[in-house]
Parts: sequence; C-alpha cells; structure tokens
Amino acid sequence: MKLDATAKGVYVIAPTPFHPDGRVDDASIDRMTDFFLASGMDGITLLGQLGEAPKMTHEESVAIVRRVISRAKLPIVVGVSAPGFAAMRALTQDVMAAGAAGVMIAPPSTLRTDDSIVQYYRQASEAIGADVPFVIQDYPLTFSVQMTPAVIRRIAQDNAACVMLKHEDWPGLEKISQLRAWEREGSMRHLAILTGNNALFLDFEMERGADGANTGYCFPDMLADVVRLSKEGRRDEAHDLFDAHLPLIRYEQQPGPGLAVRKYVLMRRGIIASDTLRAPRAPLTAAARAEVDYLLARLARRDPRAKV
Amino acid sequence: MKLDATAKGVYVIAPTPFHPDGRVDDASIDRMTDFFLASGMDGITLLGQLGEAPKMTHEESVAIVRRVISRAKLPIVVGVSAPGFAAMRALTQDVMAAGAAGVMIAPPSTLRTDDSIVQYYRQASEAIGADVPFVIQDYPLTFSVQMTPAVIRRIAQDNAACVMLKHEDWPGLEKISQLRAWEREGSMRHLAILTGNNALFLDFEMERGADGANTGYCFPDMLADVVRLSKEGRRDEAHDLFDAHLPLIRYEQQPGPGLAVRKYVLMRRGIIASDTLRAPRAPLTAAARAEVDYLLARLARRDPRAKV
Amino acid sequence: MKLDATAKGVYVIAPTPFHPDGRVDDASIDRMTDFFLASGMDGITLLGQLGEAPKMTHEESVAIVRRVISRAKLPIVVGVSAPGFAAMRALTQDVMAAGAAGVMIAPPSTLRTDDSIVQYYRQASEAIGADVPFVIQDYPLTFSVQMTPAVIRRIAQDNAACVMLKHEDWPGLEKISQLRAWEREGSMRHLAILTGNNALFLDFEMERGADGANTGYCFPDMLADVVRLSKEGRRDEAHDLFDAHLPLIRYEQQPGPGLAVRKYVLMRRGIIASDTLRAPRAPLTAAARAEVDYLLARLARRDPRAKV
Amino acid sequence: MKLDATAKGVYVIAPTPFHPDGRVDDASIDRMTDFFLASGMDGITLLGQLGEAPKMTHEESVAIVRRVISRAKLPIVVGVSAPGFAAMRALTQDVMAAGAAGVMIAPPSTLRTDDSIVQYYRQASEAIGADVPFVIQDYPLTFSVQMTPAVIRRIAQDNAACVMLKHEDWPGLEKISQLRAWEREGSMRHLAILTGNNALFLDFEMERGADGANTGYCFPDMLADVVRLSKEGRRDEAHDLFDAHLPLIRYEQQPGPGLAVRKYVLMRRGIIASDTLRAPRAPLTAAARAEVDYLLARLARRDPRAKV
Repeated sequence: MKLDATAKGVYVIAPTPFHPDGRVDDASIDRMTDFFLASGMDGITLLGQLGEAPKMTHEESVAIVRRVISRAKLPIVVGVSAPGFAAMRALTQDVMAAGAAGVMIAPPSTLRTDDSIVQYYRQASEAIGADVPFVIQDYPLTFSVQMTPAVIRRIAQDNAACVMLKHEDWPGLEKISQLRAWEREGSMRHLAILTGNNALFLDFEMERGADGANTGYCFPDMLADVVRLSKEGRRDEAHDLFDAHLPLIRYEQQPGPGLAVRKYVLMRRGIIASDTLRAPRAPLTAAARAEVDYLLARLARRDPRAKV
Repeated sequence: MKLDATAKGVYVIAPTPFHPDGRVDDASIDRMTDFFLASGMDGITLLGQLGEAPKMTHEESVAIVRRVISRAKLPIVVGVSAPGFAAMRALTQDVMAAGAAGVMIAPPSTLRTDDSIVQYYRQASEAIGADVPFVIQDYPLTFSVQMTPAVIRRIAQDNAACVMLKHEDWPGLEKISQLRAWEREGSMRHLAILTGNNALFLDFEMERGADGANTGYCFPDMLADVVRLSKEGRRDEAHDLFDAHLPLIRYEQQPGPGLAVRKYVLMRRGIIASDTLRAPRAPLTAAARAEVDYLLARLARRDPRAKV
Repeated sequence: MKLDATAKGVYVIAPTPFHPDGRVDDASIDRMTDFFLASGMDGITLLGQLGEAPKMTHEESVAIVRRVISRAKLPIVVGVSAPGFAAMRALTQDVMAAGAAGVMIAPPSTLRTDDSIVQYYRQASEAIGADVPFVIQDYPLTFSVQMTPAVIRRIAQDNAACVMLKHEDWPGLEKISQLRAWEREGSMRHLAILTGNNALFLDFEMERGADGANTGYCFPDMLADVVRLSKEGRRDEAHDLFDAHLPLIRYEQQPGPGLAVRKYVLMRRGIIASDTLRAPRAPLTAAARAEVDYLLARLARRDPRAKV
Repeated sequence: MKLDATAKGVYVIAPTPFHPDGRVDDASIDRMTDFFLASGMDGITLLGQLGEAPKMTHEESVAIVRRVISRAKLPIVVGVSAPGFAAMRALTQDVMAAGAAGVMIAPPSTLRTDDSIVQYYRQASEAIGADVPFVIQDYPLTFSVQMTPAVIRRIAQDNAACVMLKHEDWPGLEKISQLRAWEREGSMRHLAILTGNNALFLDFEMERGADGANTGYCFPDMLADVVRLSKEGRRDEAHDLFDAHLPLIRYEQQPGPGLAVRKYVLMRRGIIASDTLRAPRAPLTAAARAEVDYLLARLARRDPRAKV
C-alpha cells in the first residue's frame, strides 16, 4: 500500500508518547493508534517535527513505525528528514521494509535559491530510491526555506516519486490556488495537497483546493469533520465547527509550547498516559495549563468531545 | 504630553491611507483619526511597519504626524526605526518638535547577542536624545531579533527614556508573566506593556499582566472593549467578544496580505476611502476579498459593527 | 556621462572621512578625491556600505556627492539602497541631478526566492526611473540574499538600465565564468562585472572574466596595478604584487573592524586626517593597530607605497 | 587518554577519504593517519563538518573512529553534532567506548539568545554524560550562532567537561584576547583555544593567545611549523612561512568548494587516493583545478612540500 497522489482526508501527525522517565510508551502508542482509527483518519504521519523525531535513536524510530503499522490498516508516512543523505537513506530503507507507505522530507535550512531546492529534492529522491513515494514538507516558518509554487511544480516534474505536498506555508492560500490553477490548465500534474500549520487556515484551505489536513491538532476527529463538511459543501457548518475550535487551535499553534499543549490535551482526553516531552523541552507552566483548561471548558459548550 | 510608563489601554497602530494613485490621502487620515477618537483609543502609533513607513519620504512622514497631532488630543507615538542613527535622529527631532509623545524603535535584523541588543538601544537613545521617551518593539517574527526578558530588563535599566514595551513575541505569554514577576519582586521597574501581533493573544495577554494593546486590527473599537472587559474582570464576556473576532483576527494577522486585509475592511467600514498600498505591495486577490467578506458576514451575526 | 556596460578598471569604494567629533571632513574628502585621481581610478562609488551611508542624513549624502563630482572628472556611482523606495527615489533624484553617473542597489535582506529578487529590481528601477543606470550589488555575506547567475541574467534582461554587477559573492569565481559563458554563447547581454570583497580574489576574478574591481582596499593604487597587469597578460607579476598585499587584504576584509582598518591605513598614508567612524562603531584596539602596523612594515619591503 | 584543557598544538581536522564510487577508503585513511603522525600533529579531529559527517551512517562513523584510534597514538576528538540528543548520545557512547579522547559539539542553528546557547551546552553535556570532555565549536559563519566571550565563559563555568574552544569566529582576534584577559585576571578558568577557519588568521591568533590550530588546511605540516615558530617567538619566520601559504589558504577557505580543494591537494600530495566527495557535492571545475595547480606551483618556490 504505497502512498500516491490520490491521497486525501486527514493524515494525522502523531506525537510520540513517552513515560514520565522518557522511555517510549508503547501502551499509549497503541491507544493513540486505536483512537486515530476510530476518529476516521485516512493516514498517519509518524516522526515529524512534532513527533520529536530528532530526539529518538534510529532503533527507537523504527520500532515505533513497526508498532503502528502492525496495528493500523492505514497508510503510514514517516518523516525521514536528516542533515545528511546517509541517515535519511538508512531510516527510509528500514521503514519502507516495515511497510510504510512513503516518507516525508523537509529541506535543510541552508537552502536559498530555487535551483538549490529543486536539486536537493532530486538528490534526496536518488538517495532514498526513486521508487519510494515522498511528501514535500513546505514549512518556511520552521525551516527558513521558501518554495514558490513554481519550485514545487519543478520538484513534481523532476520526481515521479513526489506524490504529496504537506503545505504549511504562511500565508499559503494563494499558493494552493496557484497550484490548482496550473493543474486545471494542464501545466502541472496532480499532487495531493494536505495542509498543516495546526489547521489554522483549514477552513479556507479546503475551499482553495486542498485535499485535506496533515497536522496534529489535539482534536483530529474535528479535523476529519471539517474536511468532510467542506467536501460536502456544507460551508457554514464547517466554519461553525472550525470557529469553535479556533481559540484552542491558535493556542496550540504556538511554536515551542504548542507540542506541550497538544500532549497535555491528549492526556486529558485519555489518549496518552503522560504529556512528557524529551529534552530539550519547555514544559507548560501552571498558568498555561490553566489557560488550556479554560479553553477546553469553553469549547465543551459547543463540542462535547472537549468535555474531559 | 510625553509618553511615560503609566500608558495603558489601546494605542492603535494607524495605517497610512493613500489615494488610488499613491498620494497620501489627507481626508482619510482625518476621518480615520476621528474614528480612533470616537472608538476610545488611548493613543495612536503612526508610521509603524504596517503604516508603510519605509515607503514614505521624510517630508511625507512629518506631514502625517503633524496632521494627526493637530486633530487628536491623544498621545502620538511615531515609529522612527531606520538603518542608521542619522535618519532616526532627524525624524525624531522633527516629530517631537511637532508634538509627538514618544517614538518606537525596532532593532536592526542583524543583532544576535544579548549585549549587542542592549548596546543598540543605548546608542539609539543617545542618538535621539535621552529625553525622548521610547518604545521597544520586540517583534522577532519580522525582525529576527530575539530579546529575552532579561534583555528587556537591561534596556529598561540602562535607559530612563525607555517607557513601554510593544510586545509581539510569539509565543509571548510567559514573557509577560516573567517581566511582571520581576516587577512585583522589585528587581525591575514598571514598563507599560502593550501587545501587538494583531491581537492574536490579547485575551490571555491581558490576564498575564499586559496594560493593553498596541496593534492595528481593523476593529480597534473591539480591542478597546476587550481591554476594558478584561480589566473589569468580566472574563467570559471578554473572551466571547474576542472569540467572535478571532477568525478575522487570524486572517488579518497573515504576514504580507494582512495589511491589505486591514485596509480593505477599513475601507468597507467607511473609514478610509481606498485600500491602496504603495509598492512593493501584494494586493488582495478576488478570492481573498470574498473570504474577508464572508468572515465579516459571519462576524456581523455576533458583532453589529461588522455590518458593512 | 552616464554609466554603461562598458565600464571597467577600478571603481574605488570611497569611505566617508569624519572629523574626530563626527562631522563630515570636507578637506579630507578633497584630498582623498585627488588621491583617487592620481591613483588611476576609473570611477568612484560613494555611500556604499563601507561609506557609512546609513549614518548620514539625506542632506549630508547629497553634499558629499556634489563635492566629489565637482572635483573628479570621473563617473561617480552612488549607493542608494534603502528600506523603502521613497528614500531610494529621493536620493537618486538628487544625486543624478548633481551629476552622478548611476546608482548602486543592494537587495533587502528579506528576499528569498528567485522571483522575489527579480521583482524587487524591476520595482526599484521603476521607482528610481528607467533611465537611471544601476549596479546590482550581489553581496550575500552581508545581505543574506543569494542570486544565482540565472537571476542576474533575468535582472539584466528585464531592465535596460542594469549596466553593472558589483560581484561580491563568496565563493564567486564560477559565477563569473557562468555569466561570461552565457555572454559568449549569446544568451545574455554584456554587463560590466567589477568585483568586491575587498579584492580577496581579484587575482583570479580578472582571469575568470571580471572587468575590474569595485572595492575599497586601502591601497586602491595596487588594485589598479593588478587589474592592468592582468589585462596585459602579465600573470605572474599580477600575482606577485597581489600576494604581497594579501596578508593586509585579508586583515581588512574582516566584517566589522575592516572599515576601521581601512580608515586607519588611509590616515597613516596621509590621505584622510582622522580614522573616526560614526556610531555604531567598533574602534580598533591597540593590539589591532599594532598588527596593522606590523603588516604595513612587512608589506613595505615589497611595495614602497606601504612606507608610511 | 582523555582530552583536557592543557591541549595545544595542531589538532588536524581530518577529511573522510572515499573511493570514486563513494565507499569509505580505508587504505587512504591509514595513509592519511600515518601522514598526520609524521607531520607532528598533536591530535586528530574526526567527523567534523569538513569530514562530511552528516553523509555517513552511524556504523560508518564508528568504524572510521576505531580505525584511526587503532593506528594513531594521539588524542582523537570526534564531532558528534546532531539535530537531537539521541543521536548525539549514541555516537558519543560508541566513540568514547572505542577510545576517543573527547567530542566536539556545534550548536543548532536556531539558537539566538545567550541563555539558549548556555542552556543547550548544559543539556548536551548532560545528554552525553558529564564525564565526556567536549569541545565547543564556535563557528558563526556556518552555524549562524553568535557566542560572545561571556557566553563561552558561562559554558566553561557550567560544565567541568568543557575543555576546549574550537575558535572560528570571524572576526575573532579580540575574542581570544578577551578570554585570555579574563583568565589572567582570574575570572575564568583556562580553556584550550585552538583555531579554525582554515587557519586564515593563525599568524595573529597565536600571538593573541591561542594554543594552536584545529583545522584541516591541506598542509597541516605547515600549521605545525607556524605554531612552533610562533611559540618560539620567531615571529618574522612564522609570518614568512604563513604568508607563503596564504594565497592557497584563502582559496581553500571558500565555503563550498573549499573541501574539494583540500581533497584535491591531499590527493596530489599522495596522501589520499581520490578527491571524491559524497553527495551533495560540488566538484571542482577544470578552471578551479588549474587555479589550484598554479597556486601550488607558486608555493613550491617557497615551500618545497608543495612540489607535487
């Protein structure tokens, strides 16, 4: 079951649950996986930025991928970004052998020119094998690499294995419109576009042509609803649900504490046992936890899933 | 009427209205100024980043400041950030002579170390005159300069003329808490803290100890309400009003198109005559305008001011 | 006398001499101008980065340009880089009216994608007037903007007024070769290429196809010799002279203290009266001055001009 | 044999030799190790930036370290910089178990504030074990992290395991003077300071108080001579030798092609069999190779080691 450009819906970015002492928490992985299945996810992305990928050894990473694959009959995408192609290739080989559907690659933060970005993806695809489907992670806020729509089109043209764009440019709405306009006019083949940025613009991204979400907001079940409502043309309902969550979405989207918020809510929802992060980490302060509790209480008035 | 550390409430960041041909639109400046007065603003900041300051000549800048000061009996703060101290000093002298209450200074994007930031503000204050009250603009997302709370404390200690922090770090809630904790324990004198970032976190910033807002969201009248409700301890009401605006706040906060959104709504509200930006600019697409219209229509159901 | 693409030789980057109290030193400007004329310069660039341009007011800048133009029958290029087009246009108009041959424009440090760089130069040329010859300053180390050869070709194609490249990419030799290869094959029109970076690679840049130097090393008379020897095909002699100066070139090329070194040597050579820099500045330490003295003493054994 | 703060002399940065097909070339590693021993090196640093560390798998890295340690009775320092502590810890454990003398750690490029740098090194030392001696790599040009002398002093104070500074700030002479002044006045303990930047300022760095060089210039035997002459107070001789090499030092110091130059010269000197780089790579053009050949020919007139 390999990833291809027809992917759509919600590919949830999974966090990595840890025990309070920092060990990987397998029971929580299983419970979280079951929750994702029950929530109607269309796929799962493991070991992304917010999966604390760089804090895990190669062996731990592969073990997590195996565990989730064995439990979830869903396409599993694995983040394999690395400072060099050797580690990227090694992880790719192991996770594809374990049954992953494809990999996600973010560009190194030193890339500046259009040509250097295009060349990087060509070399990366060559390094991991031209038969391995890959996702472009376009996240300038974190990676400092800016890809124009034309650069994304060039990457798609160069690499048959490029099947999806994890879109998290900001602002990013016009980028979706441009890529879809090129597709309609026939100057670009179809890529799946799933959007990130903690879903901060998911409401309009769907309307601009996105195929779904590829992010890890602590209510992925809500993401699935918004994607579905949007596809069914029930615009106001989609926005109503989205807007109810927006105060918390915004809070969780903060770079840095965002992941701690996400884990805290998932813990309060009973999905993972502990909100522990591995170092380097910035745990939530008491004030921040109280703010999240307040946001959840307010949200619960409009979405009962927030009653925790 | 010089700015001092007791400043509070809303100091609205004013855009600069242009005629469609790019000339400064004096009639719109007057109407906007009257609107700010009627909306209960506590001060006005002119020629900030989103006032398109670098697109105006020195003469235009001074003329705008004079015009607003002559009409508004409010403290006027003027952005004087410049690549060198000569231009900063020249503009400061002219606007202070015209009756400005103080100036706002952003750090040059090349600063990296704590010492270099502290030194920059010392030199800047020396350059403009130690008697000119100034506001620190702490906006890492745009300026790439990261100031810890300790750096801000050092700047406050070094410079008696430093009276306000325009806080727009992101995440920034813990920074407010830290500065206020130091103030309570007596290790730091009081600075006015007014927050920016298009008010994306104003709800919680007030609760953490901010004195108000210093931003330019297209409904500054709503900002004044939220600040007031928050100060009166009417927490839920503050959040209810804030949350109603959050979908549009978030949309306007996008770097790049954000200013075009702001001007478009101010035009639709009848406050400025044209949403023209000076080059370099990225005008709103038809799709974006339709999205803003939709957001306004939704907002109007909860805040009648959005009926435009 | 307008700048065009046939420019060649040495366009020296002039520092701005100050009195110890920070006022512009007109007598030193005159003496320096005479020295440049006597040293066989082919042109002079005023108000570049190392001319401390941002530290001067508009009025001071224009006065300096007028003074040099009135004394030197040479093409004068003026740096007009600014954070906005209003200031850029204002300075350009005044210096072109005063008789400047053209202007030099560096890109703002926020530009990332190829298209954004190309667009910037188109808008800048439009802003200053399509009849004003301009020089691209390609200096990634300072401006953080990376232009591929293809981007430079696009700028040249878009703007007839683009006549020269101030080349200071690092590494930069292959860039010269690429541009000249395109010129030979007819896919790019000729641009004058004069090189910067304090001449650190002038020896090989000439051999790769540069037309000369556009930098401010404290022995511009040596630069003229190296350019001449290189053009005459006297390769070993060019390198011998260059190598003798390389220890000092390298020392002066340091970002930060480099300008202080340059002014110190020009002062010791009797060309300017004081090595004062305007704030913000980092004056040379005693240890650094002693190192420069030692380098001059060693150089004097091979080039008598260094006997100071 | 653990690294401590009395380290001095030349710790050469070793490249990683590859066969033309990209496999690690063990025979060349051995020959290179023997050459380093014969050249009077005081230590060897493996798997630094210019050892192409990110292009190798964990297993390859450990194998190289074992191989060199088994052959060279010298302290071996290993670069263990990684995007996360898990990989850093894993590599550290394996190489320390194999007999390495210590490790070198560069900061991640996202660090900005003084506190975040200090905190990073504390967490890194905790992660690898407080008993593992480590070297700070202070290389702002590549890592975009700027450490003031005060930050380095704080890292030294916090971590007993911090024993050496690989100094490659640019400019960097005053930094050495400041650290040594603090040491003399008793406000900082002694750290070994060995300098990098391809030795571009080694002549003066020694005079400012450096203990030696920690770089990979293709004539490390010359570095040893300069360090020795400088320590013996034979200043002019040190500079004479250094200056003879400076044209090539400068050429090899170019970021990007520099490593290709280094490998090419080591190949021409018969030390490694091939100048192959692993992807991503930018091989030397024919023009660049000819320039290096010319530089070697010129150098050979003054240093017979350059006759290749």
